[in-house]
Amino acid sequence: MTKKWVYLFSEGNKDMRNLLGGKGAGLAEMTNAGLPVPPGFTCTTEACLAYFAAGNQFPEGMWEQVKAAMALIEKETGKRFGDPSNPLLVSVRSGARASMPGMMDTVLNVGLNPETLAGLARITGNERFAYDAYRRLISMFGRIVKGIDGKKFDEVLEAWKAKTVGRRDTDLTTEMLQEIVKEYKAIYKQELGEEFPDDVWKQLSEAIEAVFKSWFGERAVTYRRLNKIPDDWGTAVNICTMVFGNMGDDSGTGVAFTRDPNTGEKVLYGEYLTNAQGEDVVAGIRTPMKIAELQRVNPAIYEQFVRLAEMLERHYRDMQDIEFTVERGRLWLLQTRNGKRTARAAVKIAVDMVNEGLITKAEAVARVEPEQVDALLHPMFDPAAKEKAMREGTFIAKGLNASPGAATGIAVFDAKRAEERAKAGAAVILVRPETSPEDVGGMLLSKGVLTQHGGATSHAAVVARGNNLPCVVGCESIEVDTEHRRFTIGPIVVNEGDTISIDGTTGEVFKGALPMLEVDWNKEVDLRTLLSWADEFRTLGVYTNADYPRDARRAREFGAEGIGLCRTEHMFFEEERRPSVVGMIMAKTDEERAKYLEELLPFQREDFEGIFEAMDGLPVIIRLIDPPMHEFLPKRETLIEEVTTLRCTGADPQLLAEKERMLALVESLAEVNPMMGLRGCRVGLMMPGVTEMQVRAIFQAACRQAKKGIDVHVEVMIPLVTHVNELRLEKEKLARVAEEVIAEEGIRVDYKFGTMIETPRGALTAGELAEYAEFFSFGTNDLTQMTFGFSRDDAEGKFLLKYVEQKILPANPFQTLDQDGVGKLMRMAVEAGKATRPDIELGICGEHGGDPASIDFCHRIGLKYVSCSPYRVPVARLAAAQAALRSPARLEDK
Amino acid sequence: MTKKWVYLFSEGNKDMRNLLGGKGAGLAEMTNAGLPVPPGFTCTTEACLAYFAAGNQFPEGMWEQVKAAMALIEKETGKRFGDPSNPLLVSVRSGARASMPGMMDTVLNVGLNPETLAGLARITGNERFAYDAYRRLISMFGRIVKGIDGKKFDEVLEAWKAKTVGRRDTDLTTEMLQEIVKEYKAIYKQELGEEFPDDVWKQLSEAIEAVFKSWFGERAVTYRRLNKIPDDWGTAVNICTMVFGNMGDDSGTGVAFTRDPNTGEKVLYGEYLTNAQGEDVVAGIRTPMKIAELQRVNPAIYEQFVRLAEMLERHYRDMQDIEFTVERGRLWLLQTRNGKRTARAAVKIAVDMVNEGLITKAEAVARVEPEQVDALLHPMFDPAAKEKAMREGTFIAKGLNASPGAATGIAVFDAKRAEERAKAGAAVILVRPETSPEDVGGMLLSKGVLTQHGGATSHAAVVARGNNLPCVVGCESIEVDTEHRRFTIGPIVVNEGDTISIDGTTGEVFKGALPMLEVDWNKEVDLRTLLSWADEFRTLGVYTNADYPRDARRAREFGAEGIGLCRTEHMFFEEERRPSVVGMIMAKTDEERAKYLEELLPFQREDFEGIFEAMDGLPVIIRLIDPPMHEFLPKRETLIEEVTTLRCTGADPQLLAEKERMLALVESLAEVNPMMGLRGCRVGLMMPGVTEMQVRAIFQAACRQAKKGIDVHVEVMIPLVTHVNELRLEKEKLARVAEEVIAEEGIRVDYKFGTMIETPRGALTAGELAEYAEFFSFGTNDLTQMTFGFSRDDAEGKFLLKYVEQKILPANPFQTLDQDGVGKLMRMAVEAGKATRPDIELGICGEHGGDPASIDFCHRIGLKYVSCSPYRVPVARLAAAQAALRSPARLEDK
Repeated sequence: MTKKWVYLFSEGNKDMRNLLGGKGAGLAEMTNAGLPVPPGFTCTTEACLAYFAAGNQFPEGMWEQVKAAMALIEKETGKRFGDPSNPLLVSVRSGARASMPGMMDTVLNVGLNPETLAGLARITGNERFAYDAYRRLISMFGRIVKGIDGKKFDEVLEAWKAKTVGRRDTDLTTEMLQEIVKEYKAIYKQELGEEFPDDVWKQLSEAIEAVFKSWFGERAVTYRRLNKIPDDWGTAVNICTMVFGNMGDDSGTGVAFTRDPNTGEKVLYGEYLTNAQGEDVVAGIRTPMKIAELQRVNPAIYEQFVRLAEMLERHYRDMQDIEFTVERGRLWLLQTRNGKRTARAAVKIAVDMVNEGLITKAEAVARVEPEQVDALLHPMFDPAAKEKAMREGTFIAKGLNASPGAATGIAVFDAKRAEERAKAGAAVILVRPETSPEDVGGMLLSKGVLTQHGGATSHAAVVARGNNLPCVVGCESIEVDTEHRRFTIGPIVVNEGDTISIDGTTGEVFKGALPMLEVDWNKEVDLRTLLSWADEFRTLGVYTNADYPRDARRAREFGAEGIGLCRTEHMFFEEERRPSVVGMIMAKTDEERAKYLEELLPFQREDFEGIFEAMDGLPVIIRLIDPPMHEFLPKRETLIEEVTTLRCTGADPQLLAEKERMLALVESLAEVNPMMGLRGCRVGLMMPGVTEMQVRAIFQAACRQAKKGIDVHVEVMIPLVTHVNELRLEKEKLARVAEEVIAEEGIRVDYKFGTMIETPRGALTAGELAEYAEFFSFGTNDLTQMTFGFSRDDAEGKFLLKYVEQKILPANPFQTLDQDGVGKLMRMAVEAGKATRPDIELGICGEHGGDPASIDFCHRIGLKYVSCSPYRVPVARLAAAQAALRSPARLEDK
Repeated sequence: MTKKWVYLFSEGNKDMRNLLGGKGAGLAEMTNAGLPVPPGFTCTTEACLAYFAAGNQFPEGMWEQVKAAMALIEKETGKRFGDPSNPLLVSVRSGARASMPGMMDTVLNVGLNPETLAGLARITGNERFAYDAYRRLISMFGRIVKGIDGKKFDEVLEAWKAKTVGRRDTDLTTEMLQEIVKEYKAIYKQELGEEFPDDVWKQLSEAIEAVFKSWFGERAVTYRRLNKIPDDWGTAVNICTMVFGNMGDDSGTGVAFTRDPNTGEKVLYGEYLTNAQGEDVVAGIRTPMKIAELQRVNPAIYEQFVRLAEMLERHYRDMQDIEFTVERGRLWLLQTRNGKRTARAAVKIAVDMVNEGLITKAEAVARVEPEQVDALLHPMFDPAAKEKAMREGTFIAKGLNASPGAATGIAVFDAKRAEERAKAGAAVILVRPETSPEDVGGMLLSKGVLTQHGGATSHAAVVARGNNLPCVVGCESIEVDTEHRRFTIGPIVVNEGDTISIDGTTGEVFKGALPMLEVDWNKEVDLRTLLSWADEFRTLGVYTNADYPRDARRAREFGAEGIGLCRTEHMFFEEERRPSVVGMIMAKTDEERAKYLEELLPFQREDFEGIFEAMDGLPVIIRLIDPPMHEFLPKRETLIEEVTTLRCTGADPQLLAEKERMLALVESLAEVNPMMGLRGCRVGLMMPGVTEMQVRAIFQAACRQAKKGIDVHVEVMIPLVTHVNELRLEKEKLARVAEEVIAEEGIRVDYKFGTMIETPRGALTAGELAEYAEFFSFGTNDLTQMTFGFSRDDAEGKFLLKYVEQKILPANPFQTLDQDGVGKLMRMAVEAGKATRPDIELGICGEHGGDPASIDFCHRIGLKYVSCSPYRVPVARLAAAQAALRSPARLEDK
């Protein structure tokens, strides 16, 4: 017995989506729900795959099943395919498992030839309609099935329309359509060297094949790559009796959403076009009416449609996007699917439907995409204004979207001046070839940052993300000329003081100001409701990465339950502290260094006091100093240039000597691969006093705040541990300092010591590390770099994006955790860590902590929390809830 | 019942080394063999550990056991401890499990006080001897047990010796010794505020304690750290009846080896000192006679000793180092142990003993240290000349020993001039702040390379090792001044043209020429014999890393069974090829690049032809291009300096333009962490044509040589693979090229495609990689870098050596494979690789392939071969045999 390749609509249902495609399953479901759907059937996705597997041949038995299904439709409709006396016409449409709007092709009116055309004209009494249908068939078939350039048909149609008074397609006369048909057929013959087929079965089989083949059409492949849809899903083909909206003014076609897809409001939303086929609405041939107007034009149909729409929404328990046609006053539903919606609408609809009793809270939580929450949280440019900019050519460049959000301001080309202008009240966008620690002051006062070079972990990107500053980096198409204070893109010149707008969410750069839509968390009532439901389901904690009290407060507002990563080195970058920092680095003896550390201590203490206050009652995980020391000094290349110039001109011997001294220091600290050099806990071990000072500052702050009644929970995190001895020595040393301070201050605070797991060896020997670490925090940024051997700064610009584009990698591993490699190390570390210390606290503080797919993985391997930037906290809350809903039993509990 | 803490010599044997220490076990063994050993006993190493565990208290029952043992000795000797009528004197010596010569302390003549002194004088009829023994006891006890500065005693002795005619200790009269005893006792009282103890039991117990405590003495701890001996072994204490070599001219003491420890010749080798105690030989107080002279001086004793020495060698089946004393014409053996020997002697003795039927081949192979083989293979400075240089102050600096061997030549400060001078016939040592690819030409013509900066993987080190060029890097105490063509170390100046000598095996730098001992492999008959035996035992193959035919030939001579790593990028560094290489890198289009690749093809082909010829019949694994492209270009810092200077002076606009263009290119290729940037297979994927050209050249060479009758086995290795798709794409592309060339050339050659496993992710996903790789080669240099997160270039100079020094790491993981971390990844990869492809060929080509401990690990995890530099091949052959002997059953077979 051959396989069942063909299902009548009446044989399927909505759960057969994988086999019948979304559209096919929907038509089947509607058919069985008794809704007015034209009779038809579906060739399965398996048939599609079998077609390719057989070398572009229908699988055995399929064509016979198609014919048998056609016979049943003929019986049901009383029409016959290819029968001039009462011809059956069908549409042939694709329908994949996932909705891929506009990506797949459709052929209408299959079954027309000169004989059936005559019959159709006779039966409908509308010759014009019949010819209109025929010319549509020829052009669609020619274009889609045979690959003829559609423009050739369009030119003919346009030429004829130009001859009419109204210049619209409805103004074409029967005679004109007859001429058009002739010309279309001539084009067909000229292009293909054969006549347009009169054999209706040949039309049908070739149309089905064309839909199959379009699965590997360029547009479809591109869409799948962008949306991570596998190639081996295949598409189904739906063959459906034609109904005609273009049979006169009592006919028409429409598309409608059961709720407003932009706002989520509960109103019918859509359009209706009289005397037209579906394609006409999409193509924008005439301006359709709003769906509400239909009530006036045809109240009966409108009422019927409203009733059906409500029924569909209740049936599918989601907002529906419905295609329908009215043929001579009779309403037919051609398709229904869950409607696409904006982020705002998604949230509102989910919350409303719970309130209406239509869905459960769990369903509401599962239904909103975490990324939609993200979109709601950043100020963004008005989409309409953006579109206008695109049209008007003020969209001038695109770089990497390094830190989300939109910003408008005047371009300024150095950090010092940016600071001045900002203090003078200007909104500033700092534009640099790239940034360095010296620029941080200026960056923090700017509204946004744009750099020509650098990747997603370049200095600019990291500082911007940490400070929620919109930022576009690696915008290589602009040429920044700091000397003349301007940048150019080909002929376009942007001078200092000119206004520009940057969109850190998309990487786009605009000339001039764009109007902005701002966010007010307190007004986001629906979102807050949804997230409070999410909190009921999730088991994963959501912490935040925050270095400053203001970030900590913001994150707490967003629902953060602790700080998972407080970086302490940013505190060293601030201007007033630089002399002490440089002194500390240059110190020749431990005593000399101690003096500078003494100066830094009060600054660090203050930083921590603010953070403990902001996080009263919640854990704060503080990472000790991490970057290599040369990051705190001027850049080597700049110094070489300065020294060479000063030597050459002989202008300022004193300045030269000073610069030479600094250059010598910088060169002595220079590293070939700083990412894997003297940084992390290695600094603590090799430069005595630094981490002791930090721990002293942390515990002084903790004890003093505790005395004020603040509930402090300190967790000190030792970075970049790769061998247990590093951890043991640092921990022992620092725990002594902690106890000393506690004794000095006379008040005990709750504390833990733990480590980052961010080198492969750290993960591989986690069992040993857990002997000393009370907690692990996976630093998946560095762990990914070292596991792959990808320096992120270099890789993203030089090959990583191309790797993703060319499918060498399934995704950018710095955005979505690589579960096969990095994830394997994490699992090993989790298991070994728990084996040694069953109550070990496990979390993640890499950027993956804000990525939904990675959060799902973290849930499955049994972490306690994820930590992410403040603006990702709401996203993570939702993603964590969805992870819990997807896998109610954690892996570890299996 | 308390534990047994004390063993009589007659109760032990040589297998009780861990409990009794080496010396105690030896004394026991000799006692039981009926050799003339003075009666005595041993306090065990367990007693030592128990002593520390109890907070520096003898463990329960030990002191009673000591007393009981003393009673037995008294019975045996007929003397009594502390009995003036016939006093027993004993020595108290340390004896740890491993031989730690000179590290632990000894007290002789315990049991003397004024009364027993008188008795001893009376019984021996030698008052002078008795006082000499007493003054020795007081000074040794004072110094070792009580910590008095030894100089104080020495000054007294020297002062008295100065008063004699001969000025030797034997010239001291009895009266003088009596005075000395008085003065010693005064020092003792002054330093400690108490009298020297007359209680002989107190002397004994304190002496035993002192030996225990010396286990944690500074010298012992340092020695253990350097020799990787654990602290928890403890030391045993040997209490032995005193015999006296200083009882007159019929007495004496000696040390002798049963074979010459320098050459290995089978002759008795050692020294004898008349009328002296053992310490006197070591201290060099008088010049002893050669042992052979004893035959003349005392033929009876000599004959007896020769007989005993032979017996001991046969008993222990190894060359012995024997301490003996003659007391009034009676020979006593005080100690025997396996003798230390030079590398040359070790090999000769092992081979000779097999030939003598004394040991088996397996024992011979197990007995020679692999590092001793290494020492035989490099030209080295005459050790005597080196010692002289140390004394005379021409030893001027010490850097990192980057590539072994000795070299002498004139210092030259740039590569171009080095090339000129070398071509003019001079022996040149190239001295640079550091080297870059531009210097390679000059390096290859130099005799040796010395750099001020850089670590063991700096450019200089890597190139030198690959070319067997003696090299010292990171010699930070010298200040290289290329402008004035000189280097300085404080006041010492070495100008261009001055002769210097460098020792790449030790890192030492000398002013002037040092005489050299050269190696001739053909003359190393014993070594070759030993290695041929090693080959009978080992199951691990030994391949070599060789880039040039001459290296391949050399390695083959040394016994290499294939090339495990032929790097192809070195071929790009040669001067004549540079324009094509730069052109290839700068190419804007694939077509333009193809032109330059076309130019490079014949060069590459020639390189490979030579290598295939040299390795006729053996496998050759060729790694495709690996380093980042900017390594082939001038250095960024140099260019910035040049461009800035040219801009400033305005001298040569054309040169400026050229330099600016080059700088722009270099900057566009610059990477923050080049080790993890665009290199390895990423270059092949991102820069189409490069690896295709290489594979074309490889297969053209292979086919053409095959036509000439050479037996070619090509294995193409794709580097730095981190995701299976990289391997899949490169392999598919390149296998096509291989088949194309085979078709073009009309002859088939045997070939494989495989990959390096050198990123953690590569190892973690090895099961997937094995679907496409026919072989894996572990690139443990990079794998160690990424697993630890240690950039070797940075780490070795900045913290790694300190980490080892401070015991944060047990060893430098770039020298000895880290089995817990990197090794864990390797095991996982081996298992997963074999699961996918059971016949997968597994090897290692990192530098660990030449390290004995790492070779042992490779054997245990079931690799097929190790690959190392040509000069390490003999070392690896021996180490592989020892690994097989240690674990006859591989882990995988368990």
